[in-house]
Amino acid sequence: MNTLTVDLGDRSYPIRIGSGLMASPALFEPAILGRQVMIVTNETVAPFYLERLKHILTRYQVDTTILDDGEAFKNLKSFDLIMDHLLTQHHSRGTTLIALGGGVVGDLTGFAAACYQRGVNFIQVPTTLLSMVDSSVGGKTGVNHRMGKNMIGAFYQPKAVIIDTDTLKTLPAREMAAGMAEVIKYGLIRDAGFLEWIEANLEAVMSLDPVALVHVIETSCRCKANVVSEDEREQDVRAILNLGHTFGHAIEAYCNYKDWLHGEAVAVGMLMAADLSSRLGWIDREAVERLSLLLSRCDLPVRPPLSMKPEDFMNYMALDKKVVEGAIRLVLLRAVGRAVVTADYPAAVLQATLAHFTTH
Amino acid sequence: MNTLTVDLGDRSYPIRIGSGLMASPALFEPAILGRQVMIVTNETVAPFYLERLKHILTRYQVDTTILDDGEAFKNLKSFDLIMDHLLTQHHSRGTTLIALGGGVVGDLTGFAAACYQRGVNFIQVPTTLLSMVDSSVGGKTGVNHRMGKNMIGAFYQPKAVIIDTDTLKTLPAREMAAGMAEVIKYGLIRDAGFLEWIEANLEAVMSLDPVALVHVIETSCRCKANVVSEDEREQDVRAILNLGHTFGHAIEAYCNYKDWLHGEAVAVGMLMAADLSSRLGWIDREAVERLSLLLSRCDLPVRPPLSMKPEDFMNYMALDKKVVEGAIRLVLLRAVGRAVVTADYPAAVLQATLAHFTTH
Repeated sequence: MNTLTVDLGDRSYPIRIGSGLMASPALFEPAILGRQVMIVTNETVAPFYLERLKHILTRYQVDTTILDDGEAFKNLKSFDLIMDHLLTQHHSRGTTLIALGGGVVGDLTGFAAACYQRGVNFIQVPTTLLSMVDSSVGGKTGVNHRMGKNMIGAFYQPKAVIIDTDTLKTLPAREMAAGMAEVIKYGLIRDAGFLEWIEANLEAVMSLDPVALVHVIETSCRCKANVVSEDEREQDVRAILNLGHTFGHAIEAYCNYKDWLHGEAVAVGMLMAADLSSRLGWIDREAVERLSLLLSRCDLPVRPPLSMKPEDFMNYMALDKKVVEGAIRLVLLRAVGRAVVTADYPAAVLQATLAHFTTH
Repeated sequence: MNTLTVDLGDRSYPIRIGSGLMASPALFEPAILGRQVMIVTNETVAPFYLERLKHILTRYQVDTTILDDGEAFKNLKSFDLIMDHLLTQHHSRGTTLIALGGGVVGDLTGFAAACYQRGVNFIQVPTTLLSMVDSSVGGKTGVNHRMGKNMIGAFYQPKAVIIDTDTLKTLPAREMAAGMAEVIKYGLIRDAGFLEWIEANLEAVMSLDPVALVHVIETSCRCKANVVSEDEREQDVRAILNLGHTFGHAIEAYCNYKDWLHGEAVAVGMLMAADLSSRLGWIDREAVERLSLLLSRCDLPVRPPLSMKPEDFMNYMALDKKVVEGAIRLVLLRAVGRAVVTADYPAAVLQATLAHFTTH
């Protein structure tokens, strides 16, 4: 087992990464403060792992909330359902919520923990690659609104993140690929060497080679943890983690959060950001082609939905949280391995990128 | 104008108290960070003060959300309505929410500010005595759940609290009395001298004598601000602010948050806590009688609803946030002017108090 620490003063917490961690009560117990636990999971994950987790928590009152699966259920209604269950089962302020699932379960459970009785304890147990390397680390929690993704939420840190890599064995290949989009992101924004490592070792990762898997997850989590430690509430540098997300959110919103996985939308978004960066002369065209090839090798998409037009992007991007008083701020690549956040680019260059990706 | 500071490090903020403050843009502008403002108020307050406030905010994009009036609307549905308006009007992360109204508007708006895009700026402009001396100070925000009051929320501090005492001229007498319950509470928990001052000057306060009013509000806010500065997230000492609230919440919940005002329920709750304290030998019977007389002089109730039984109290109190792993913790009076939080009392004494207040 490898352990990283997210360094946030008195809100610091460990990330444990390894095989079979869900069999180890000793990893969970220090992060459970009282005698009550509420496991929140979904109908897809529950049959695989719920009993396994409950089995090691026999010392506690364990209740469960099983949600429908999918981004469409990351909303205030599911949030209210968790509140209902907590109150019906008389959970006190000393309770601990455990998020067992992917990013939707993690974001929703974290937000519920942030708000139940103005804040209770919670643990992230991510079961998808994407949530392992991204959403379970950093304390961003929340739900979607019909007018925009993650528009309602809180910054709220877990007591621990416990990543059992065995859970990836039951993850559909498409979700594994979606997680790789975020992994590739870390290379693009901060670590060109890691990007080269991924290009050289992609097959080992995709076939779940244990050593490759731990390396990928640990490197990604460390990158994210470092960025988050520098800037917990996204005042500045943390925003680079959103590489590809402004374009990506527009794709997801356009599709009503259906059909496209988050990671798939981010993959296309990153490629669009890279394209824009190359039009600004910051990276060369070859870097864009290399990225496109790597995404394709992961079976990730490299084009937005066929019916999407430049104005569709513009409409949804105007609602993005990264819009500060009107200007659309984007995460772009100054170089491969060095991302910057900027609203300082010619509008025509953004239009050229949008045109390029919407012309068929 | 008098100014107090709530001292919370980099989240410190001023409380301004005085007559005619709502006519002064210079008080608002330092607390408004961007160019967008959303005023949240209700149908009762809006006709009196909304235009007055908008009139001094001409430099900003000002949108408004007008809610129905009453505790029954302090719920996730109203919260969602504020989110809808913010998104429809394209409010960015740089927006400022202004809560113009009583405790319901303040708690709801504060919670909306805490959650919109994971946290935006907000200003409290309380228009009831209760919200001036209590809910607008301290950063407790949230909404009710049908199973319990304030069960969903966040600790989130405003950028400023602006108390224009002129707004009390339009406050119904019954609401003024309800606010006095919280004022009396500060005397009981921390300041026996203030309690004596209230006994001697009650008529001046109730007739809105400007000097008496500012003294009452400033002394109350200072007491609350001091307690909150010592313990922002209610780990220990802050809980004394809940004197009377555990019994009071049971009354409010029993009445489905109708008929009884929060301050009225707290008045009875404080008297019950005082009764219990005297049964423990901590304060003498005369102090309980003095409190009962003072509450009556304010036209506040001194008995729970006639139909309420001891088991009704016990059922609702078991759901209270102050219940830690089963034991009902209560705020009691070690002496007049000195409150303590304890679960260490004989169950029979609690039953005696409940019996005393439910026997007719």
